[in-house]
Amino acid sequence: MNIGFIGLGIMGAPMAGHLLSAGHKLFVHTRTRSKADALLARGAVWRDSPAAVAAECEVLCLNVPDTPDVERVLFDDSGAPPAGAGLRPNSVVIDFSTISPSAARDFAARLSQRQAALLDAPVTGGERGAIAATLTIMVGGEKAAFERVRPVLEKLGKTVVHVGPSGAGQTLKAVNQILVAVNMIGVSEAIAFARRGGVELPLALETLGGGAGGSWAWSNLGAKIAADDLKPAFMIKLMQKDLRIVQDAAQALGVALPGTALAQQLFRAIEAQPGGSELGTQAMSLAIERLCKPLPSSPR
Amino acid sequence: MNIGFIGLGIMGAPMAGHLLSAGHKLFVHTRTRSKADALLARGAVWRDSPAAVAAECEVLCLNVPDTPDVERVLFDDSGAPPAGAGLRPNSVVIDFSTISPSAARDFAARLSQRQAALLDAPVTGGERGAIAATLTIMVGGEKAAFERVRPVLEKLGKTVVHVGPSGAGQTLKAVNQILVAVNMIGVSEAIAFARRGGVELPLALETLGGGAGGSWAWSNLGAKIAADDLKPAFMIKLMQKDLRIVQDAAQALGVALPGTALAQQLFRAIEAQPGGSELGTQAMSLAIERLCKPLPSSPR
Repeated sequence: MNIGFIGLGIMGAPMAGHLLSAGHKLFVHTRTRSKADALLARGAVWRDSPAAVAAECEVLCLNVPDTPDVERVLFDDSGAPPAGAGLRPNSVVIDFSTISPSAARDFAARLSQRQAALLDAPVTGGERGAIAATLTIMVGGEKAAFERVRPVLEKLGKTVVHVGPSGAGQTLKAVNQILVAVNMIGVSEAIAFARRGGVELPLALETLGGGAGGSWAWSNLGAKIAADDLKPAFMIKLMQKDLRIVQDAAQALGVALPGTALAQQLFRAIEAQPGGSELGTQAMSLAIERLCKPLPSSPR
Repeated sequence: MNIGFIGLGIMGAPMAGHLLSAGHKLFVHTRTRSKADALLARGAVWRDSPAAVAAECEVLCLNVPDTPDVERVLFDDSGAPPAGAGLRPNSVVIDFSTISPSAARDFAARLSQRQAALLDAPVTGGERGAIAATLTIMVGGEKAAFERVRPVLEKLGKTVVHVGPSGAGQTLKAVNQILVAVNMIGVSEAIAFARRGGVELPLALETLGGGAGGSWAWSNLGAKIAADDLKPAFMIKLMQKDLRIVQDAAQALGVALPGTALAQQLFRAIEAQPGGSELGTQAMSLAIERLCKPLPSSPR
């Protein structure tokens, strides 16, 4: 099958690689052409615009940072011709980006006027899941379109689920990010308390990991905090982008999310420092620990 | 071995039963004598005061609600003679109650003057864990005393860990309760968002459970919320008691816990309603959902 892939970042590049490995003919485009080099060396074909990629493919994959990027790639006529201008009839666009659920519905409606289906298909599992093809992929949109591309999705993820109509994938991703963000508060506070209380962190991580306080965040990010490892598995700036999407959607739904809001503020405290936005989300723990540092001793 | 057990509530009664099953001679006392009936029918021996129980035993177990209850049972001379007045030299007191870490250290110091050791040994795993003898038991205090009673503890729990000096067990339990309380905020917000967003909850629970948003709270209490089951696995009033202990200890340690504080406020919103304090902690989800209910329509 001819497949297009636009957006070859940390997630997109390994995902596109799996499609090439599976024997598909792959057409690619990305803003920074050098990010395509490794795939081009393996036989992928470069095209100079989203429209030119779209014109070659039955299935077009997107993996770009944010809602405006998806809109630009699909519809914006002011720069490189957009994918929407090149899509073949009956093609399926799979958008792996995490964007607003309402925008996903809007974009799907606009593409349906061009006889193309848009599936919102955000993922969880991070860079590691993208490389190992073990992602969880939450798909919203027409069931028939989902069934057509299911074999493609199953090359990329271990858990591939059709979760509802257009936008439902993004809504479920937002639910996931609420959990991820708020669990990080618990881990940050628990570790700060344990450290000050003289508890050995490896013992705490192991003893509590299997019980009622256990979580993926505790076992994985807690261990990183204990090792003073703040390298990103998921960068704070991307989490903050996702949480803005969550709160916009929550506003539209009429749901108040005070814990999520607290997480945003604690992430902001880190994001505001040079280099902070590129640390992993576990760096929230610094915000809690900084609250407890000695005050300056100079008179004011 | 002669073992005493004081406090035969939801947790204490099944735990004492396991010791009886293991062939120990069991002496019991509890404020409400009827709670001992089933154990007495199985061969346990009633004594009229903590001191009278203590006088029979090498090992004395306590499982009472709060710090003042432990102090009363061990030291308060104003009512029934306290255990401290009856303890044999070289006996070991195992306190399974969740109390303040600093009080645990204080009580241990006071008992050491009477040649008895106190181990703080709070548990997690709930009523189900007490019945199935699968509790996690976090023990603080003298290592030698721990080793002496380890065979007793292993009749009650699956994970029995000596975590440090006196008070360390309570400190680790506090760490656990921070995680439990804050994870509940994440679950409550995620479910409220999912419901309003039209996501099928069983699908959400299953799809997200194995990923970066996953937690014991999501899989277990999330499922209860989805089923509108607010029956207590752990009552809000007991969680609030534990969180007061957490915040007192955090104040002593100089740690600020804003997420835990938010959890306390959301639990309070439920606790303040008739019957609310006896619901399970998953009833916090009602507090988030109530924030989003229609306002009264009458003019004000």
